[in-house]
Amino acid sequence: MKFEQFFFGGDYNPEQWPEETWLEDVSLMQSAGVNLVSLGIFSWAKLEPQSGIFDFEWLDRVMELLHSHGVSVNLATPTAAPPAWMVHLHPQILPVTADGTTLWHGSRRHYCPHNPDYRGYAQRIARVLAERYKNHPALAMWHVDNEYACHISECFCEHSVAAFREWLKLRYTSLDQLNFAWGTAFWGQAYGDWNEIQPPRRTPAQKNPTQQLDWTRFSSDSWQVCFEEQKRVFKEITPAVPVTTNFMSFHRPIDYFKFAQLEDVVSLDSYPDTSQPDWMVHSAMTYDLIRSLKKDNPWILMEQAASLVNWRQRNAVKRPGVMRLGSLQAVARGANGIMFFQWRQSKFGGEMFHSAMLPHAGTDSRTWREVSALGNELPRLSNLLSSKVEAKIAILMDWENWWALELDSKPSSDLKLIPNLQAFYRQLYERNIMVDFAPPEADLSSYKLVIAPNLYLVTGIAANNLNNYVANGGTLLLSYFSGIVDNNQHINSGGYAAPFHEMLGLTIEEFVPYQAGFNNTIRTTDGKQFKNTFWADVVHLNTAETLANYEQDYYAGGPAVTRNTFGKGTAYYLGTELLPDGLEWLIDRILEQAQVRPDLPNLSAGIEVMLRSDKSKEWLFILNHTATSLEVPTGKNGTDLLSGQEVNGMIHLSAYAAAVIEQERIYRGVV
Amino acid sequence: MKFEQFFFGGDYNPEQWPEETWLEDVSLMQSAGVNLVSLGIFSWAKLEPQSGIFDFEWLDRVMELLHSHGVSVNLATPTAAPPAWMVHLHPQILPVTADGTTLWHGSRRHYCPHNPDYRGYAQRIARVLAERYKNHPALAMWHVDNEYACHISECFCEHSVAAFREWLKLRYTSLDQLNFAWGTAFWGQAYGDWNEIQPPRRTPAQKNPTQQLDWTRFSSDSWQVCFEEQKRVFKEITPAVPVTTNFMSFHRPIDYFKFAQLEDVVSLDSYPDTSQPDWMVHSAMTYDLIRSLKKDNPWILMEQAASLVNWRQRNAVKRPGVMRLGSLQAVARGANGIMFFQWRQSKFGGEMFHSAMLPHAGTDSRTWREVSALGNELPRLSNLLSSKVEAKIAILMDWENWWALELDSKPSSDLKLIPNLQAFYRQLYERNIMVDFAPPEADLSSYKLVIAPNLYLVTGIAANNLNNYVANGGTLLLSYFSGIVDNNQHINSGGYAAPFHEMLGLTIEEFVPYQAGFNNTIRTTDGKQFKNTFWADVVHLNTAETLANYEQDYYAGGPAVTRNTFGKGTAYYLGTELLPDGLEWLIDRILEQAQVRPDLPNLSAGIEVMLRSDKSKEWLFILNHTATSLEVPTGKNGTDLLSGQEVNGMIHLSAYAAAVIEQERIYRGVV
Amino acid sequence: MKFEQFFFGGDYNPEQWPEETWLEDVSLMQSAGVNLVSLGIFSWAKLEPQSGIFDFEWLDRVMELLHSHGVSVNLATPTAAPPAWMVHLHPQILPVTADGTTLWHGSRRHYCPHNPDYRGYAQRIARVLAERYKNHPALAMWHVDNEYACHISECFCEHSVAAFREWLKLRYTSLDQLNFAWGTAFWGQAYGDWNEIQPPRRTPAQKNPTQQLDWTRFSSDSWQVCFEEQKRVFKEITPAVPVTTNFMSFHRPIDYFKFAQLEDVVSLDSYPDTSQPDWMVHSAMTYDLIRSLKKDNPWILMEQAASLVNWRQRNAVKRPGVMRLGSLQAVARGANGIMFFQWRQSKFGGEMFHSAMLPHAGTDSRTWREVSALGNELPRLSNLLSSKVEAKIAILMDWENWWALELDSKPSSDLKLIPNLQAFYRQLYERNIMVDFAPPEADLSSYKLVIAPNLYLVTGIAANNLNNYVANGGTLLLSYFSGIVDNNQHINSGGYAAPFHEMLGLTIEEFVPYQAGFNNTIRTTDGKQFKNTFWADVVHLNTAETLANYEQDYYAGGPAVTRNTFGKGTAYYLGTELLPDGLEWLIDRILEQAQVRPDLPNLSAGIEVMLRSDKSKEWLFILNHTATSLEVPTGKNGTDLLSGQEVNGMIHLSAYAAAVIEQERIYRGVV
Repeated sequence: MKFEQFFFGGDYNPEQWPEETWLEDVSLMQSAGVNLVSLGIFSWAKLEPQSGIFDFEWLDRVMELLHSHGVSVNLATPTAAPPAWMVHLHPQILPVTADGTTLWHGSRRHYCPHNPDYRGYAQRIARVLAERYKNHPALAMWHVDNEYACHISECFCEHSVAAFREWLKLRYTSLDQLNFAWGTAFWGQAYGDWNEIQPPRRTPAQKNPTQQLDWTRFSSDSWQVCFEEQKRVFKEITPAVPVTTNFMSFHRPIDYFKFAQLEDVVSLDSYPDTSQPDWMVHSAMTYDLIRSLKKDNPWILMEQAASLVNWRQRNAVKRPGVMRLGSLQAVARGANGIMFFQWRQSKFGGEMFHSAMLPHAGTDSRTWREVSALGNELPRLSNLLSSKVEAKIAILMDWENWWALELDSKPSSDLKLIPNLQAFYRQLYERNIMVDFAPPEADLSSYKLVIAPNLYLVTGIAANNLNNYVANGGTLLLSYFSGIVDNNQHINSGGYAAPFHEMLGLTIEEFVPYQAGFNNTIRTTDGKQFKNTFWADVVHLNTAETLANYEQDYYAGGPAVTRNTFGKGTAYYLGTELLPDGLEWLIDRILEQAQVRPDLPNLSAGIEVMLRSDKSKEWLFILNHTATSLEVPTGKNGTDLLSGQEVNGMIHLSAYAAAVIEQERIYRGVV
Repeated sequence: MKFEQFFFGGDYNPEQWPEETWLEDVSLMQSAGVNLVSLGIFSWAKLEPQSGIFDFEWLDRVMELLHSHGVSVNLATPTAAPPAWMVHLHPQILPVTADGTTLWHGSRRHYCPHNPDYRGYAQRIARVLAERYKNHPALAMWHVDNEYACHISECFCEHSVAAFREWLKLRYTSLDQLNFAWGTAFWGQAYGDWNEIQPPRRTPAQKNPTQQLDWTRFSSDSWQVCFEEQKRVFKEITPAVPVTTNFMSFHRPIDYFKFAQLEDVVSLDSYPDTSQPDWMVHSAMTYDLIRSLKKDNPWILMEQAASLVNWRQRNAVKRPGVMRLGSLQAVARGANGIMFFQWRQSKFGGEMFHSAMLPHAGTDSRTWREVSALGNELPRLSNLLSSKVEAKIAILMDWENWWALELDSKPSSDLKLIPNLQAFYRQLYERNIMVDFAPPEADLSSYKLVIAPNLYLVTGIAANNLNNYVANGGTLLLSYFSGIVDNNQHINSGGYAAPFHEMLGLTIEEFVPYQAGFNNTIRTTDGKQFKNTFWADVVHLNTAETLANYEQDYYAGGPAVTRNTFGKGTAYYLGTELLPDGLEWLIDRILEQAQVRPDLPNLSAGIEVMLRSDKSKEWLFILNHTATSLEVPTGKNGTDLLSGQEVNGMIHLSAYAAAVIEQERIYRGVV
Repeated sequence: MKFEQFFFGGDYNPEQWPEETWLEDVSLMQSAGVNLVSLGIFSWAKLEPQSGIFDFEWLDRVMELLHSHGVSVNLATPTAAPPAWMVHLHPQILPVTADGTTLWHGSRRHYCPHNPDYRGYAQRIARVLAERYKNHPALAMWHVDNEYACHISECFCEHSVAAFREWLKLRYTSLDQLNFAWGTAFWGQAYGDWNEIQPPRRTPAQKNPTQQLDWTRFSSDSWQVCFEEQKRVFKEITPAVPVTTNFMSFHRPIDYFKFAQLEDVVSLDSYPDTSQPDWMVHSAMTYDLIRSLKKDNPWILMEQAASLVNWRQRNAVKRPGVMRLGSLQAVARGANGIMFFQWRQSKFGGEMFHSAMLPHAGTDSRTWREVSALGNELPRLSNLLSSKVEAKIAILMDWENWWALELDSKPSSDLKLIPNLQAFYRQLYERNIMVDFAPPEADLSSYKLVIAPNLYLVTGIAANNLNNYVANGGTLLLSYFSGIVDNNQHINSGGYAAPFHEMLGLTIEEFVPYQAGFNNTIRTTDGKQFKNTFWADVVHLNTAETLANYEQDYYAGGPAVTRNTFGKGTAYYLGTELLPDGLEWLIDRILEQAQVRPDLPNLSAGIEVMLRSDKSKEWLFILNHTATSLEVPTGKNGTDLLSGQEVNGMIHLSAYAAAVIEQERIYRGVV
């Protein structure tokens, strides 16, 4: 998708307001620099008050009004909120939990993705919308549904059971293959008929792991099927209009790498908790993930809060400057649009205390002033629209691995993927080094370094890919509990991490999960000492050399960190969980070996630096997350697009201020 | 209702015992001063062993026996425990939870208040009882059902759904009005047919707030309907016999201000946890609420424990003297009856470890000695029977506000009403100042000071009432998050607290909910400094003056406490939550301004002073809650009714002792 | 059952592996000393792939292969895992929870024990197995089902309800007796028809205690009925083959004292958490319980883990030597077989990370080396096979008391039986004194001392038994909250502990349950001072003397510990919960009076000593649980069977080492 301008705006819900308010809305939008609104996200009951009876006149008027004020429309299908009449006519639309409880109308997302009645209605409303507005000049984008798999990610109704069986038939062809894959020989669970198969409902004891994994795969796929059905309608009627749906950060239920390939542009809803001192690390990591879903393509920050949300225990305000910093961070990490939920704060309903661009207090308010200032300064960044973010490091992230890793009955329930990703990500964030996320089967040849934390489930293709990456000269860091099971979640033959034995130059005899609070000491071969936590592998070296050994317990003297030369590359193995200081030591060593360096070295803590670039120019983003004024070196000279000032090697940033310095492109960072 | 004597007695369950025990019972009752028992509360299965087959002969004998020993009867309808045969014949009587689970026979209160079969049976047994005993000389009162909405407060069965729809039709007349009130434009929840409406069962995401509020209003009303149906029978057959039911402190499910108007006399079951050092503050607050339900009328402490209960994690004994202190506290705060659950401790069943007037250990026990001593000293207080409690301060308490405030999706889930009421109440309790509770639409003209904590939901009538109260010379203290929504739970137009802007002389731009453990500092204009917690308003002054400002964060310098002159009165606003020392400072200032003073100033901690009075006399209650003997000044002279001794300005109270000093009425306390 | 050799082996699940693996299996079994495997535990779906269609050829081959390699078979009925086809044909087989939720196929134990279809299928497969293998030379034992009442202990389906009513009819004969026993006069719960009776499903408030107790009794009985139905088949077809099922430590749902009488030999699955420093105390207590179920008979450790399990939060490895120590501990406490779950670690399924004799890492692993070493040293202990364990102390343990004690609505929810048993057991474990567990109606005449903690529910027969035991010269220690209710859970007439008043020489007026963290001080008559916790009785002495009194609170000066001479014996009463130091003082005093002494006195902490003996010999087990080498005195001379070395009064044990010293039998320990 090509961007002519930075999008700026938010969700617009005119149906919550009398028509006299609409004119004030569009006039204020103009003054705030709004050029796009997401419209109609929950309007099904208003657009189709009875089955097949449509009322679009109010929407016609809204579209016209927006258009006449220079605001384009990201037009939504309202399918996240089936109307009450539909639920009444077809109660089977309602989703059902694992223990058989029905979830009712009265909030949102109260539908089963496998219900054929629902799916028919959803495609019909999409078609009616497309036909009506296909030539409307305000129409800029299609916004399908809303936050797929938010609140509920799976349904256990009879339609879902039938759909699961069909999905399994496609995957396995025969029951023999299913019985093999699921390991039904364990606990005598073999199936002799497809109709005997059930989803993983409540059971007396721990469930079949592969049944659970397949159920999650199936549920993830189901939301994509819903999306594709609507997208097909739009591609038929309005082939040129881009189609998107709004994603939700590291959202466990859906494999976003897979889903993103169906979209014309990736969109994200992002609600960092800015009361946390490291909120910007979390949002950075999210933005890097989202950008990586469709590498080298810009994305849209589709929803963020102007200030507080209303669904946390205690909802923090965004203090002065924080919303702007977060918005610029998204742009720096590849976003070409900054949008909010929502335009005008509701007077009623479940989100009336969620902040908005135009708050309850009206325009004489800090929130409004900050929002409209941002909308009016974003156009200064238009030169960046076709630039990209380049990263020399990839962290591997695989939804199927995530799902498998966090199923029960593991050696330790401390095995959680995202905290582990965060630990590595934070090391690179703090060094101001840009990072991509990549699935383990992706082309990794452009990366100097690949980090693979807890790659428990690994397909044969992915294993080959990683082995080849190293053999061809790459540097890989693999952490403990990787290479354990195959795609069916069967233990790989040949011992733990068997697919990587040769590359790593070692074998693993057994795991030592630690009790809470237990530590061991790691002594490095260069004389340092660190504490580990919660896990140790008992490792036997073949060709690898050890970089650090355990000091206590029965495996004392055994290797905790190893390095092995494999082909033209180098493979590191980390057989334990290091605390941050040990991880810092390790990453330093590896970065030095892989010759990866930050864009701007030796900055104060709290200064975040990011780079977008095109063939001839680059744009250095510098954010001051501290409450202090600071002098920051900028490397070479350029112009701060936000202030319009020339910058000569050094810039002054007051508390919570930011700069975007346009510079000539030169060689930097990576050797 | 007129009291001839203090009631003393308890629940009497003779059906748990062989008839030979009954004679011992009534003889021991006589010796303990028992003059009233609550009879038959759970006797339905015994009175009506099969549908329409009644067995009253045993009850005749009990009534006769009691009467012949001078004990009157508070005769109960047994409708809190429908018999097993009824459940078997009509399983739909059983209540159903929000997730569709049926709750079964085998404990108590296993009925849906909307079930027509149940309601028919309940009225029939009430009628049979009334007809049989209408002329019985022992009959003193009717005790309808038992602890309405205890354990379960709502039912989601099909009868309940139908009743909810009828209730909504009466409230809203049209679906348009319902759709408006519920804000169904949010998340596309509009209803096109009454039959589409459901109660707030389990849903995928947060529920419609007004739907939830109406459901709670409806459920509260439903219990009142059950009560009224039975009361109607009694008023037809025995119009002169007072009708009551037993209430349960700050009992969330039922609007007691509304319910109490249906009763001839208000009754309370009170089970303070006397292991808590401040148990007497909690019970005082409860007793003041209960008295306030029917202002200027005495009430009955219908149940309390002689010693331990059996439903806490760890059930404290009432140590020597504590039961007496608690009983006198109830009398001081308006009770004209002290009753217990129950007369004789059960040998079996779910409450066999709940203490009783006559414990398992029998009469050679501390419990029995303390109970019978109290029963024999209560008659000494007969002069008080037609006296009242007068308070110059009211704390506003509104069930609908309570329900609305504690629904989810608020800026902070720390917003809880009762702890906030307690914080203010405690300030006055510790100063020995009597307090009423009042609903916000009540006549407030008799109060020198009204305190309104977190009056989030406020009707137009209530807002006018408060504005008029101040305009006419009253002093009001309003705390943060007040005046936010109207009766439909829609944000009031004009900004937060809009209905009170003029009265308060300020506006509120935004809320700053704090993270757990976060504090700010408040500096007062008279030079003091206090810590606040969990919330700050960003306030802009108009006519108000500031009494204290914030010291840190982006709203530093902004007002935390303000005062405004409005008409003839004064309005204080507290935009934050103060810790106790700050609240003490504030209440001191306001009491001084409102000229409210305690009955007896400067007493030791642990001494509780209360006053009942009639036109010519007053009775000063002094309770020593400490383990030490103390000399306590009594103001003027009088006679301690408990000891019979003259008191001349000073009384000696040994540990855990009490006095009730009869004095001539003179001016006191309030200017 | 007579043992020719120590059993050594594990669960063998060949159906999880290709047949080519089987030959490797049996060859490795031989090298590891395996002589018995448990076979077919979850093989139903493989043995009977469709209803009535059997496939035994694979099992024939396995049996043959095992036999030809000298491995006997403990052949299992696979009835813990009904096949998918059965569930599909008869969904009513699935168990139902108290709130009506069905538990599905997909793990194991997904059956209702009352379902007639299931029970028919289970007996049929047992019969087919018995007929096929009745003459097979490898058949050594029958293993019925697997871990009865693991995961689910009760079912609330309609079949279960009907079965409960039949059970109640047998128990009570008439509804009048049931109504009396259940105390249905409380809360009006009387039943007029058997069909009105329900199991204790979810109810609004606390349930009828006797209904709950009977439901637990019934559920416990139901598993025994399932066992007996299968056993009957085996006793008909293979009367000489012993029948067992595998028990699970202190397993609340089943009265093992009752169940064990149905078995030919008792078996145990034991999974101590060896990350806990006192794991060996817990396992010792379990082994002593299991041995006591069939006093004087050896038992089989049917399952233990070679290293880690996979169902804890964090699963500890068994560090070097620990598995061996635990195995020898079982032998010392009466086991004649050491078996594992399982032979070869699974590649898939819910327990793939559960360790096995042959781990994922294969034979070049610590686990394999330790397992095969143990298998090869066990035969050295063959002299012990017909020896016994003799104990002079019994701790009373009664499942019905356990169930009743831990129902809700007690004075304190701190009342938990097992921690209390542990507190006493630990005192004796630390003194290296062997202990039996006994039900309160057992013949106690062989014990010098009987300890009865919290014997809340006591039948008349048990009360007489205890009174007679003391009268005839025994020493009894009874702790608080004993003798409170009868078999119907009705409070005993005559005051708390009434059945023991004369024996104890005291009465109990009331209970004082403490709040969390509250303590009182106990001063002993011999001048010591200790803290108590969570409970005090208010005791009045008759003939008893006090050994310690309370120091604070209103019952200060009252007795906390008493002693009374009754007939020829002595009864101690402990009216409170002492912390370990106080308990140590008390047990010292009682042991001295009862003249019980340890086998080896004054040993270092961490040395565990146990004794098995026959008429002429005894075997002293000494385990060094410490990480240090120690010299341990052995009393007299003998031969360490493990090392083959002579021992002359002293033995050297390196860290985590053990010895089993064969000695001539002489007088020891008990006077």
